[in-house]
Amino acid sequence: MARALLLALDYGGTKHTAALLVPGERTWLAHGRVFSSPGADATCDQAAMLDLARRLLREHPGQLTAVGVSFGGPVDATRGVVRLSHHVPGWEETPLAARLQAELGAPVAVDNDANVAALGEWTFGAGQGCTSLLYVTVSTGIGGGWVLAGRIWGGADGMAGEIGHVVVRPGGVPCVCGKNGCLEAEACGWGIAAKARAWLEGGGERLKAGNRHPEADSGKQEAGTALLALAGGRSEAVTAQMVAQAAAEGDPLAQAVLDDAAEALGAGLGGAINLMNPERVVLGGGVTKAGERWWQIVRDTARRHALPQTRVEIVPAALGDDAPLWGAAALAQAL
Amino acid sequence: MARALLLALDYGGTKHTAALLVPGERTWLAHGRVFSSPGADATCDQAAMLDLARRLLREHPGQLTAVGVSFGGPVDATRGVVRLSHHVPGWEETPLAARLQAELGAPVAVDNDANVAALGEWTFGAGQGCTSLLYVTVSTGIGGGWVLAGRIWGGADGMAGEIGHVVVRPGGVPCVCGKNGCLEAEACGWGIAAKARAWLEGGGERLKAGNRHPEADSGKQEAGTALLALAGGRSEAVTAQMVAQAAAEGDPLAQAVLDDAAEALGAGLGGAINLMNPERVVLGGGVTKAGERWWQIVRDTARRHALPQTRVEIVPAALGDDAPLWGAAALAQAL
Repeated sequence: MARALLLALDYGGTKHTAALLVPGERTWLAHGRVFSSPGADATCDQAAMLDLARRLLREHPGQLTAVGVSFGGPVDATRGVVRLSHHVPGWEETPLAARLQAELGAPVAVDNDANVAALGEWTFGAGQGCTSLLYVTVSTGIGGGWVLAGRIWGGADGMAGEIGHVVVRPGGVPCVCGKNGCLEAEACGWGIAAKARAWLEGGGERLKAGNRHPEADSGKQEAGTALLALAGGRSEAVTAQMVAQAAAEGDPLAQAVLDDAAEALGAGLGGAINLMNPERVVLGGGVTKAGERWWQIVRDTARRHALPQTRVEIVPAALGDDAPLWGAAALAQAL
Repeated sequence: MARALLLALDYGGTKHTAALLVPGERTWLAHGRVFSSPGADATCDQAAMLDLARRLLREHPGQLTAVGVSFGGPVDATRGVVRLSHHVPGWEETPLAARLQAELGAPVAVDNDANVAALGEWTFGAGQGCTSLLYVTVSTGIGGGWVLAGRIWGGADGMAGEIGHVVVRPGGVPCVCGKNGCLEAEACGWGIAAKARAWLEGGGERLKAGNRHPEADSGKQEAGTALLALAGGRSEAVTAQMVAQAAAEGDPLAQAVLDDAAEALGAGLGGAINLMNPERVVLGGGVTKAGERWWQIVRDTARRHALPQTRVEIVPAALGDDAPLWGAAALAQAL
């Protein structure tokens, strides 16, 4: 009999990845990627992904037993229907699971990328061995997903895990969702960049008002100098990466902005811990590379916000950008 | 064969209730209550409850098939062990499930009262028919519990549902837990009373600063007059009930305090909805009797905080103070 194969598919915003896994193994049998061409719609992307999957299956023969799919947008996981994509037109109400099942002849499970990434970390990454897990990706935006008792918890409308839009600072930084002081606006990449720009433009007063770690003021450098230099003198060009770099170089303004973002994240996580008491919190995404001080503030603040009887185990993600793909394999494995 | 019987026990702070249910029925076969004498310890209370249970079972013969227990304090539900009571000494690390099982000869499940009340509302009350439920009791303090996919979600340490200690207003009202601006401090009975006292003592300026519903200012009455009269002229004697009554009588200060508490609760619920996307939120406890305006502000604020794709179904609890007892019966029924 032919060997069993699982197919994992990850539809990202601009790149789509497919991989084959032999059940029980921990390295991909095969792996491939295609990029969306500018102006591509849902039909193009589905055709490109199907071509890629068929090529992998042709080159690595076996019995396809199940397909798991991570999709970068809201999904009705129960029905296997993509609600929409925020990046690519034409995905509205696409019955992706049914279509793939018809094309590939195997059962298909679909869920959104944050949920699937959570399952990936739980099955193959930093969440192994725990019974409940909150996964949060702190990157351009903030997304999250829950694994409770070994299963994705998507909630009544597939929206669970949206910790990025929990308000942690009423009246704070305006968020893309229309509220102010959402965790995303206070702690993610664009939020960090926006706050740094505002503080640069507002000068010392803004820095003082927002700076919750006064020791950052006592540096020998003048606040903002290194950051502004990295941005070529134009505050509007500041990015979160520049903030992290300037902070590492000792710029007190950049450090204060980063500390402030870490503290907002810790507060949000502490609240989530009080609400759900997960055994572990796994943090992924680019902002988590901001250094040991950022991690320390996140953990200390979460500990201070969480009730003393709760566990506060906050660890870095292990799978990086591959978390959704590994999660898709885990979804397939569970079918 | 003797009819099957379920025994439900509810250990409260000062009163303990026991009831017998024939599985599948919706009215108690028998029901009794004992009160803790002042100075009672865990041993007294356990003996009194056991006496009561034995009496009910003697008077209503049958085959005891299972026992469900609601306990007013932290519980390790997996092991059936009471961690401690905040009201009665001597409960530390009591293996309540094992003891009751030895005494009564039937399997026993124990959980804390907020979790059990959530299960009670889900099985017999306002949560019937939904797949996920957040239950919050807004009373002297604020407690909460989750029922997800038909089961209590207690979390890694039995602490899930502690929405009362999620910070909704950083730097706000000091909370018993040591933080500031916890939902409990901003929205529960003692929080409402404390805020009313502070605003009465601080005069109009405090009122203005905290008042998020300016129309409350436009009443014909002078702010605080009715409330102060209810408290016999002594601001330190103000209670949450007086605030609700004065608000109903048109006192603008009392109304503003109540509105502010409702808004804090709505914000906390909106955050919980973004995090977990429950199908329904059930609110119980004395503060929920504060009137239609309070409910409207809670619902509107939660809707504003929750992402548009999430359901925001916020309904009053149906079982009142009996929710833990009904939940204990549901716990027993599930054994």
